[in-house]
Amino acid sequence: MTAVAAAARGNGRLQDVLAAAVDTFSSKGYRATSMRDIADAVGLSKPALYYYVTSKEELLVQLYEHVLDANLAAARRIAADTEDPMTALRSVLVDRIRYTCENRRLLQIFFEEEAELPARLTRKVRNQRRRYEDALIELLARAAERGEARLDAPPRLVVNSLLGAANWTYKWYDAAGPLSPTALGETLADILLRMVREPS
Amino acid sequence: MTAVAAAARGNGRLQDVLAAAVDTFSSKGYRATSMRDIADAVGLSKPALYYYVTSKEELLVQLYEHVLDANLAAARRIAADTEDPMTALRSVLVDRIRYTCENRRLLQIFFEEEAELPARLTRKVRNQRRRYEDALIELLARAAERGEARLDAPPRLVVNSLLGAANWTYKWYDAAGPLSPTALGETLADILLRMVREPS
Repeated sequence: MTAVAAAARGNGRLQDVLAAAVDTFSSKGYRATSMRDIADAVGLSKPALYYYVTSKEELLVQLYEHVLDANLAAARRIAADTEDPMTALRSVLVDRIRYTCENRRLLQIFFEEEAELPARLTRKVRNQRRRYEDALIELLARAAERGEARLDAPPRLVVNSLLGAANWTYKWYDAAGPLSPTALGETLADILLRMVREPS
Repeated sequence: MTAVAAAARGNGRLQDVLAAAVDTFSSKGYRATSMRDIADAVGLSKPALYYYVTSKEELLVQLYEHVLDANLAAARRIAADTEDPMTALRSVLVDRIRYTCENRRLLQIFFEEEAELPARLTRKVRNQRRRYEDALIELLARAAERGEARLDAPPRLVVNSLLGAANWTYKWYDAAGPLSPTALGETLADILLRMVREPS
């Protein structure tokens, strides 16, 4: 079940609309999608759809906020609940890869339609992304203090490399292949963390 | 100078058209761009533009082939010219990151407009990408034979992680920042190759 569909069980029709927006943006492209297409996909009349959202742009904004909030909340929860910073860093990467592979179409929109966002949200997206990177940089710094990670390269470059490799799974993860999203996350996290682990 | 602009010096007006296509697809989005927009950007009448290319789709195809051919040729040239496989792998990554950062708008089109390619080219793109990955997997296997790389994880996962982190620079490289594309490539390649180096 996708993240948006899972949320739909709690929030009713608006979440059905968001799930239909993911389907439609993903198959037709954001620009080519009309509110009529989304109304048809969710089984609403066009006036009824406007009761839930005012525009296609608002739908895109809601999808972005959903992804940003879900990922930042997960990273902060893991960081708060896990005493060992290297273990926390690994859990954040596993979770991020699992989430990405389970929601590939949503993440494709998220990664590829950023230019379509209204200007007022561009800054918010950038700030939220930076807060997410900062959470990982802090884990890295805590691991370095304990002698478990090396900090011999600019930490933002290292974090961008970890996240780039994790994010890229939206392009190549094969749901029909041998690894579940979580298993792929665990395998990749162990490989990726070699970039930062202090050799023992 | 971008890759397309550099090629333009040799190939004349067609390459000017391709460079104008990169500019226009990048600023307006592929779907929203018309042949009229490209004609205006390159300073040709619309009929004159049709002398060089038959459609917007053909322009996209040519941009894809340009990137695929340039990268595969570079990887094969480096692999053939470099005796030590780990040194070759490092050079391929440095070159790939440099190319990506120098041609961010072209690579954004390349990574984000794949769904717009005609079906006949989708298979070609996939095959060419796989050949590129295979060239890296072979370098990795040769390095492992010499005891310099470990092969304790599926090599295609490792190569996808290396390339994912390298490709992701198209999203975050800051041309106004302290590192040139080549310097960023060298810094990142050293971090990324920790994923595969045998601890000495």
